[in-house]
Order: sequence, then structure tokens, then C-alpha cells
Amino acid sequence: MSTNLKGKDFIDTAEWTREELDSILELAKDLKMRFAAGEPHRLLQDKTLFMLFYNPSLRTRNSFEAGMTQLGGHAHYLQPETVYSPTIKVGDVGETKAAAETKERVSDTARVLERYGHGIAIRIFGKPADWIYGRGDQIVRDFAKWSKIPIINMEDDMFHPCQGMADILTIKEKIPNLQGKKLVMSWAYAPSPWKPLSVPHSVALVGTNFGMDVVLAHPRGFELDPKVMENCRRLADENGGSFKVSYDMKEAFQGADVVYPKSWTSIEFLPPKRPTPDLDGVRQLIDKHRDWICDQKMMDLCNRKALYMHCLPADRGFEVTDDVMDGPNSVIFDEAENRLHAQKAVMALTMGGRA
Amino acid sequence: MSTNLKGKDFIDTAEWTREELDSILELAKDLKMRFAAGEPHRLLQDKTLFMLFYNPSLRTRNSFEAGMTQLGGHAHYLQPETVYSPTIKVGDVGETKAAAETKERVSDTARVLERYGHGIAIRIFGKPADWIYGRGDQIVRDFAKWSKIPIINMEDDMFHPCQGMADILTIKEKIPNLQGKKLVMSWAYAPSPWKPLSVPHSVALVGTNFGMDVVLAHPRGFELDPKVMENCRRLADENGGSFKVSYDMKEAFQGADVVYPKSWTSIEFLPPKRPTPDLDGVRQLIDKHRDWICDQKMMDLCNRKALYMHCLPADRGFEVTDDVMDGPNSVIFDEAENRLHAQKAVMALTMGGRA
Amino acid sequence: MSTNLKGKDFIDTAEWTREELDSILELAKDLKMRFAAGEPHRLLQDKTLFMLFYNPSLRTRNSFEAGMTQLGGHAHYLQPETVYSPTIKVGDVGETKAAAETKERVSDTARVLERYGHGIAIRIFGKPADWIYGRGDQIVRDFAKWSKIPIINMEDDMFHPCQGMADILTIKEKIPNLQGKKLVMSWAYAPSPWKPLSVPHSVALVGTNFGMDVVLAHPRGFELDPKVMENCRRLADENGGSFKVSYDMKEAFQGADVVYPKSWTSIEFLPPKRPTPDLDGVRQLIDKHRDWICDQKMMDLCNRKALYMHCLPADRGFEVTDDVMDGPNSVIFDEAENRLHAQKAVMALTMGGRA
Repeated sequence: MSTNLKGKDFIDTAEWTREELDSILELAKDLKMRFAAGEPHRLLQDKTLFMLFYNPSLRTRNSFEAGMTQLGGHAHYLQPETVYSPTIKVGDVGETKAAAETKERVSDTARVLERYGHGIAIRIFGKPADWIYGRGDQIVRDFAKWSKIPIINMEDDMFHPCQGMADILTIKEKIPNLQGKKLVMSWAYAPSPWKPLSVPHSVALVGTNFGMDVVLAHPRGFELDPKVMENCRRLADENGGSFKVSYDMKEAFQGADVVYPKSWTSIEFLPPKRPTPDLDGVRQLIDKHRDWICDQKMMDLCNRKALYMHCLPADRGFEVTDDVMDGPNSVIFDEAENRLHAQKAVMALTMGGRA
Repeated sequence: MSTNLKGKDFIDTAEWTREELDSILELAKDLKMRFAAGEPHRLLQDKTLFMLFYNPSLRTRNSFEAGMTQLGGHAHYLQPETVYSPTIKVGDVGETKAAAETKERVSDTARVLERYGHGIAIRIFGKPADWIYGRGDQIVRDFAKWSKIPIINMEDDMFHPCQGMADILTIKEKIPNLQGKKLVMSWAYAPSPWKPLSVPHSVALVGTNFGMDVVLAHPRGFELDPKVMENCRRLADENGGSFKVSYDMKEAFQGADVVYPKSWTSIEFLPPKRPTPDLDGVRQLIDKHRDWICDQKMMDLCNRKALYMHCLPADRGFEVTDDVMDGPNSVIFDEAENRLHAQKAVMALTMGGRA
Repeated sequence: MSTNLKGKDFIDTAEWTREELDSILELAKDLKMRFAAGEPHRLLQDKTLFMLFYNPSLRTRNSFEAGMTQLGGHAHYLQPETVYSPTIKVGDVGETKAAAETKERVSDTARVLERYGHGIAIRIFGKPADWIYGRGDQIVRDFAKWSKIPIINMEDDMFHPCQGMADILTIKEKIPNLQGKKLVMSWAYAPSPWKPLSVPHSVALVGTNFGMDVVLAHPRGFELDPKVMENCRRLADENGGSFKVSYDMKEAFQGADVVYPKSWTSIEFLPPKRPTPDLDGVRQLIDKHRDWICDQKMMDLCNRKALYMHCLPADRGFEVTDDVMDGPNSVIFDEAENRLHAQKAVMALTMGGRA
């Protein structure tokens, strides 16, 4: 285990070593048991996490806020318009002059908050990041650049590392030996054209990091970020797994041990690839692939005890049928619960602990 | 006393036995004294209450949130639009397709939250329940159906059980023996046509449950729900009180020991009785009864030491005159305070306690 | 030291004696050291502060909320529209009838909240106070009139006493002996016409209260409130300092030990001086003084080790250049940090402490 983690930012799991990620899982398991047993574990007593939400959230907000309470501290729920909407470049995002005048730079915001508390967590993707792919991640990294206290990525337009860790924690609970096990991160149809690539990125990254045989499945046009793909290949090499791409959902599901079917947008239609966001273009492309749905017939292609996973909220009836989502293979609520334990471990390791 | 209450939902007092309600009052009195004496009472240490507010709130929100702090835990303030607006039937409430796509089912929301914390409290009536009488209560019960942790009703379109318990706690503090005492739950004029029936329902239900002689007074057209009326009659029978209806405010106030004059809407003008909500119809009916106001002349009809009660906020100058509201018979701030103590008792009994 | 402060409102530092303000500074220093050393200081365990924010806030909200956590209690973040928008005079502020009907009087709000918790903190200026100079302060004082628990002014349209105390704490840390030291509270250019006079008022008041030689610098038309000016002169007399006005930024900066250049509006264009707020008039006046900017040339007029201060957020490029704000004379982040410690001292002294 690698435990010298105080102050370390948690933005993309690929920036943590495998040993460091193992420390998160170890502590998460321990905290999960203590919570179940009702044993206090006030590792961050009287400490503060600032949560800045540019987007809605059910699981992330409530697991972080309840998690801080369980650790003896407190999390602030901050919406950007109530705290002067920190921004990296005033004026360059189509803001009116009046609006820009009420904003404050991330550099100033970060250097103030670090004086009051112990961690800053941020969620930003889609519209609040002006539909420019990568801008959300850039804002998170701007906070990290300026803040001495750790930054936790609560999902930006590139990564959702807390989801990734909750997912691998769940998989390891159900499948003790991951060697040779097949994880399918698959695109699925949903009417909304604005879902970020953060989850497929982070799932593929943790899957390869933990030595699984990862298959990425999607229709053409929904390619992931090439830099992330490269990291997945490197991690597969380093950890004894593999990483492949398929354009056929059925082929991918054959013999799978874990399937993770989920919609995401196409970055081909967004800046910086396009001068302006073309959400209608995404919609037209999406609508060609309504058959990418996870139903019982798809599950029948997998191994009998294959896990069905989803980060939630799922678009029931589009991405997945009710019988699969509520069926015997589904582990979605265990997966949602593990958000709590994984995040508490990340917070305890980065915001508390050794001096 | 009946104390085996861990996990029990608190939606309508009529669904709790009289002994169970007595347990709430006993514990509330005890916690009130401990709070006054500054003695810690951390019965829910590090535990979490999720408060989902579809409507504004001063008393409810602050008494629950401060109450959880006093009990050593924490309450999340959640607004629906920030947590994907849980809904029981996506698409059937006149929502745009885009809006429906950003919502999540109550079934999924409840099954996630139960993994992170210890109770879910909900307020929903009026517009967020589409002005369909009973839909708010249906949503609360949908949470209860899916959640293993207790559901607390913070006021829906049918019941306000926390208000009811605070009211009976207040009445018992001022009038030790309730046998033969007359409680008048009266309609009063206010310009707003959208006030729910939850308070008159819950006040009539606790009044009869605690053996008082309850008189319900209102102009024709403001009838309460027949099912609630039936429960009131049953409870009066069981507990040695009585339950009568009057269409004359003055007649009702004669010799009263407690008066509770308050505006409510007419469910005759709302679905399911009408195909669409007719708030203008309510307004016209309301405007015929501007004389239903509680002034000093009305108070003079009551017993000299009669209690004037209101759940607040009151429409000063409409429902009640300032001299009555701020006069010697008014117990409104004691009543508001007792929200805190009654709710802390409900939370401690349902969310904590024995294993 | 004067320590009999339980229950005392903190609205304007000039209403506290110098000895009482010294108590705040003494405790703030102590709490700052304990926080740095990681030593628990739960002086307000399980207690509640109600924070009512009519305006956005980064520093104030987060320092109060984190401060309450560090003191073992909890602060509620309340926005007016979620708590029936307490108001002093329903209907007289251009509200629609429907809006007025959803509001509650401050008198009722205050008398309810005092039953649930231990302090009420309020921020209100500008639009929420209808641009009527003094109305925000009037609302804060209306809360103080009705509430038995202490009221803390988190910035109204006249005073920002917490900022003032953080500022003098910072100055005293850097300049041990304030006798004969020159503090320049200067107007500076910013495009926004709506910044209140609260900061220049409170800075001038604490500067004179602590015996500094205070120079107030601004273009004609930006005069401070005559009643505040009179208090500054009195405090300078009583505490061995001086208070002068200059209409020339350069002259004022000559030999300064502390400079505090900051934009504020002109109350000449606002009610009660005008029948309606004339923000365009303010804008035109402001735009004549774009040269009131704090750049390195201005800093060169001061003493070599002069402190550059600002309450933040600053309008970078307008009020001040980046090189000054991020330069060696700038103490802005220490100043922001001291908000936390000064406010924790105010809360501990007024909300807790001796019985």
C-alpha cells in the first residue's frame, strides 16, 4: 500500500499508482464495515469539504455530504451563482459584460477556500463548461493549480474517478479474482445528447488498471478521447489485462463477466472539433442507434452470473429494460452505495491522516 | 408506551396507535427540557436525514435541520431540481420531453438514499404535485414503498403529521386534561387559493385521537376529505371525544377552549374531481367568505383562556387580526417551537434507538 | 477586556466599545492558533446559526459555515425565496400581490428562529433592499428588534463589521503598533455601479477606533454617510488617531502604511435622496474616474512595506492591477482568512459562553 496521500488531488485515477488506488479500496472496505456495524469513524472531525456543483446530482452530493458527516466533518453545498461563479477566463465564454463582472477567478476562489477548510470537490460538464470538450476538466485543474488543499473531481467532462473506484470496489466484491475476466463498457441509446464521456473513460481506466480484459463497444462516431485510449492500453499492458474496441454490441457481450451499457455524447460534434456545439448533430447520430439497448436477450449472451452495472440515473426503457435493471444480475444499488465508501476513503486519505 | 418504532414511516398520525403517539409526546417533553438545560442529547450521532423540499419552508426546514444538529447528526437540504426531481410517472404530468429526461424515478432515488443515510423527509403539495389532490401524498408513499429507512412527511397535500404532533404537545402543555375540551378547527379567509388541506386534516385527526371535542367549521364548499372525516369519527369514538361539523364560525367558537382558524383550498375545484385545476374557481368561492376572520370579537365568544393557534405563516389582516395573533391568547410561538421537539422525538424513535 | 457579550447584536462596530472589540481580537488570535495546531475548540457544540443570504457570497458564507463546524455547531444556508422571503413591509416595495402573499414578516420569522437555534446572520444590500440606501440595515435591525438570540450583520447596505474586524486583525498582525500609522480607505474604479458603502464605512470605523490616522479618499460625489463620518471623527478623537478626507488618490497614498482601494456606489443617486434609484447616473459618474486604479506607481507613493488590502472579490484590471494584487505588498488572502477567525470569535462570544 501507498499511504502518503495527504494533499493529493484526485482528478483522474490514471494519475494515481495502482498501489495508491489499492489503498483507497482497502480503506473503503474497512469504512464500509464500520458503518454497517454502527462504529464511529470520525477521521475528519470538524473538517470541511467545499462541494461546488455546476450540475445536478443525487448520488454524488448525498454520498459526499453524508460521508463527511460520518467522518465527523461537514460538506458545504455550493452552487456557482451563489458564490460568484468562479471562472477561468472572464469574458471568453459568451458571457454578458454584466455577468462577467459578477464572477471571480478560480485562482482567487481557490486561494480563499484553502484558508477555511480541508478539501474542494467540483462537478462541471456540459453547459456550464460551454459544451467545449475538456473545459470542465481544465477548470478542475485550475482549482488544483491554485489550491494547497486537495481537489476531488466529482465528475467533469473527461473523468469521474469516484465512480470508477466505486465500480471496481463493487466488481471486486462480487468477483474476487479479476484476472481474465471480461468487462464490457458499452454505449447504449438514450434520447439526451449531452451525457459526458467521463464514466466510460473512468470505467475503462480502472478496468485496465485492475488487470481486466476490457472491451469498449460503441457505434462509430462515439469514439473516446485518444489520450484516454492510450492510457487504457498502457494500463492493460502494465497490469496483465487487455483493451479492445468493438463496434458490435452483441459481439462484445459474448461471454462477458461485467457489462456496463450507458449512453454518452459524441465529441466529434463539440468544440474544439467543431467551432460551435452541434447538439442536433449528436441527436441525429444517436437516433440511428436505438437498437443499442441492454435487454434480457443481451444479458443471455453474457456469462450466467454476469454483473449488470450502471452509474445512475439510467434512462429506463432506452438504455436498459426494467427487467434487466431490476433483475438478478443487476448490482446497481450496491454500486451506488460503494460511492459512499470509496469517497470516504479518498477524503480520509487526502484531507486527513498523517501530518 | 409503545417504543418499537425503528424504521416506521410517519406519514399520517392516524396510522400510528395512540400509544405510539404518546411515546412521541413523552420523548418530546424530555428532549425539550434537555435542550433548555443545555444538556447534550446526541441520539443520532453522525446520522443523516435527507430533506426533499418541493415547496418553501421556514419552520419545517429549520426545525428539522437544527433538530438533527442537536441530535448529533446532519440534515441535507435538497431541492428537486438539484437532484433530478424524483417523480413517480415520467411524462404524465405535462412535462416537456427534455424535462422528463432529466428526472429519476422515486423507486431508484429511494433505493439509493437508503444506502447513504437514516431517514428521508419530504414536503410536496400544490404545484409540484400538479394540483392533483392526493398526488403529493402518493409520492410520499411511493418513497415509503421503496425505502427501507423511514419516511417522514414534512407536509404533503393530505397530511402534516409533524404539525399535528406539535399542536397536541402545545395544547397538552396548556390544558392538562383534554377530556371535554372543545377544539375548533376553522376555515378562515386568505387571498391565496392554494393552501393545502394537510393542516386541518392533521389537527382534526390528533384532536380526536387525544379525546377532545373537535368542531370542524367552514363555509360550504370547503369540505375535508371524506376518508379523513371517517377516521376522525372513528378516533373520537375510540378515545372518548366527539367530532362535529359547523358551517357557522360564530356558532363554532362559542365556548371553545382552542381555536385554530386557517385558510385552505377547495378540493372540489381540483383533480381528480375536475379534469384540470380551477384555481380561479377557488378564488371566487374564497372571496365570498371574507368575513371568516378571527378578530377579538370572535375570541370573546370563546372561553376566557382559550388558545389561539396557527401553524404559520399566517396571512395577517386576512385570516387573523394583529391584536389576536399577538395577544394574550395566542400560543403561536410556543406552537412553532414545539415543531422542533416533536420532530426530534419522531426522528430519534424512527431513525435511531434500539437495534 | 469586556466579556459580558452573550446575546449582543453585532451590526456596526461603532456600537461596541473598544474593550469589547479587543475581546473579539484576543479570542480570534487564540482560535486561529488552535485551528492551525489542529486542536479542537468546540465552543458552540450542537448549536445552530441561521444564515439568511439575500445576496451571493463566497468568503462570508464559507467562513461562517466552516467556522460553525469548527466550533462544533452547524450553520443553515437560507435563501429568502425558500423561507418565504421575510420582509418588513409587505406590499410597499413594488411586489406583485401574489408575491407579497408568499412573504412573512421579519417579526414572525425572528420570533420563530430564536426558538430553534442560537444566532441569526443576515446579508442584504442592493436590489434585495430595493436600492434604497439604509433599507438593508433597517431589515437587519428589525430582526434584532424582534429576536432574543443575537443578530450578526454579514454585510448590509451600511456596515460590514465582520470585514472590519478581519481587517484590523490583519493590520495588527503586520503592524504591531498602530499609533501614527496611516490607513488610506480609497475609492477605486470598477464598472459595476451597485457596490455598497458597507466596506468603506466599516474600515474607516475600525481604523479610527484603533487609533490610526485614517484618510478617506474619493472623487466628489462618492461621499460617505454623514452619520458614519461623524462617528469616525468621534472615534479618532477618543482613540488618539485622526480622520481626514482627500479628493486626490495620489496625495492620499503618499507615505501610507495601509491602502484599501475599492469601488463603491454613490448614494446621491439612490433613494432616499432620489425618488427612484438612478443606476445609470451612478454609471456616468463612475466612468469619469477610470484613473482611480491602484497600480505599482500608486504603491510606489506609499511606504515601502505598505499593506495592500481588499475585501474581495476585486475587479482585477479595474480597481487594481494584477501585479499589485499578487505582489509582495498584498495581504488579501491573510485578510480573507481572518474573516474566519474574527467571526468565530464573534459567534463564540455572542452565541455561547457564560450562562
